[in-house]
Amino acid sequence: MISKNKIKAIRMLSLKKHRYESSLFIAEGHKTVNELLRCFECDFIAATEKWDRPDYISENTDIQCVTENELKQISLLESPQDVLAVFKMKKLSVSDIDFRGKLTIALDGVQDAGNLGTIIRIADWFAVENVVCSQGTVDVYNPKTVQASMGSLAHVNVVYTDLPVFLKGIDSTIHKYATTLDGENIYTTKLNENAIIVMGNEGNGISPEVKAVCDKSLLIPKILNDRFSAESLNVGVATALISAEFRRQLNFR
Amino acid sequence: MISKNKIKAIRMLSLKKHRYESSLFIAEGHKTVNELLRCFECDFIAATEKWDRPDYISENTDIQCVTENELKQISLLESPQDVLAVFKMKKLSVSDIDFRGKLTIALDGVQDAGNLGTIIRIADWFAVENVVCSQGTVDVYNPKTVQASMGSLAHVNVVYTDLPVFLKGIDSTIHKYATTLDGENIYTTKLNENAIIVMGNEGNGISPEVKAVCDKSLLIPKILNDRFSAESLNVGVATALISAEFRRQLNFR
Repeated sequence: MISKNKIKAIRMLSLKKHRYESSLFIAEGHKTVNELLRCFECDFIAATEKWDRPDYISENTDIQCVTENELKQISLLESPQDVLAVFKMKKLSVSDIDFRGKLTIALDGVQDAGNLGTIIRIADWFAVENVVCSQGTVDVYNPKTVQASMGSLAHVNVVYTDLPVFLKGIDSTIHKYATTLDGENIYTTKLNENAIIVMGNEGNGISPEVKAVCDKSLLIPKILNDRFSAESLNVGVATALISAEFRRQLNFR
Repeated sequence: MISKNKIKAIRMLSLKKHRYESSLFIAEGHKTVNELLRCFECDFIAATEKWDRPDYISENTDIQCVTENELKQISLLESPQDVLAVFKMKKLSVSDIDFRGKLTIALDGVQDAGNLGTIIRIADWFAVENVVCSQGTVDVYNPKTVQASMGSLAHVNVVYTDLPVFLKGIDSTIHKYATTLDGENIYTTKLNENAIIVMGNEGNGISPEVKAVCDKSLLIPKILNDRFSAESLNVGVATALISAEFRRQLNFR
């Protein structure tokens, strides 16, 4: 049996304030939990008998076997997925990372938790080690972000910083590309891997302060004719298209 | 004032059963409503004074001016966006469409309403006129799909059919590409525009029956190394990457 107080303490982690007070966050489901167990310190696990417990789990891990009904009381999901874990956050900052010679994604005010999770999953797919977020970007430990990242949070560093200051101060050999609706066509621009790709907010795009410190604007072209008129792409989709084009030019040919 | 019965009747349209009994569906927000007004017959509009009423709206449209509080009672969104409209569905079937010589997206059991909406938005961006869905694919008139498509439902035909039968019966000159995790690299395969790109279910991919009637499997490559290990991409993201590569090879160079 899990105590009511324990259930309450776990569910409180749905709120950012409580997450940062305790430096803890929630992850749910086989794929996500088992992947995060590889590289996040685990504080607590509640799991039903159906959970595929990985053999690399630490012996000291506090694991409580629960019924499906008990898990329902703890879980933040509509359909709980056999396991819920509480992990310790990683405290990493931009000064811990060497950005030279590699591809980085920077996010200027991405608001939707699911979009951030999708972007982390994309970063993992295209081997983008670091995602640098503006202070106004949604919290990476938001449960919806953790779920949408499908375990990729285990492989990608996500750090928060004052984005204009960071971009202004960074090694000047690193290319800073702003993704916009009026830049150079990504498919006809020679892209450089020593780069930071900046993606903007869902509704407003990249802020003027951030755009001002980028070297070049990039555009994902669309087919123009009378019939079609999508005005924009989802920020996760746009991040995937840009990342893919860097990798296609540099690695996939 | 909108009557309680009217409010109830509108909110019932959140259920598929009621949508198909009445052939009506809901759309909300300036962008989506104003775009759908161009090409769907409108049954009813509830709007606050903040709505940007387009000048191309039919004079006979039943428009009711409501307060923000009234709109909250009708709306399915957490934050209503000034306007909610009820539209008549379009009844279109695969036999109404000529698929030759163009790019088509086919969906084999896509379950998530948001993913379908995202895919329609992507189709619009990359000028894919037709999206053919298996009977097991989520309903295109699901309010979450309509919202996620951001008005692109106005430009893209979405039809439902028995997908294996449709693919088996189609003109044999049309290429049928299955998107899988073990096909040919899209970036090194010469792609043909006279084609149907098949995308599978979120968890299980493409069904064996559908795969059996495709000519070729395509793969979105990823960077392989020890650190990164995303196992899959979101189906919306994968659709965008495949569509973009067709357009890059055929139109963007």
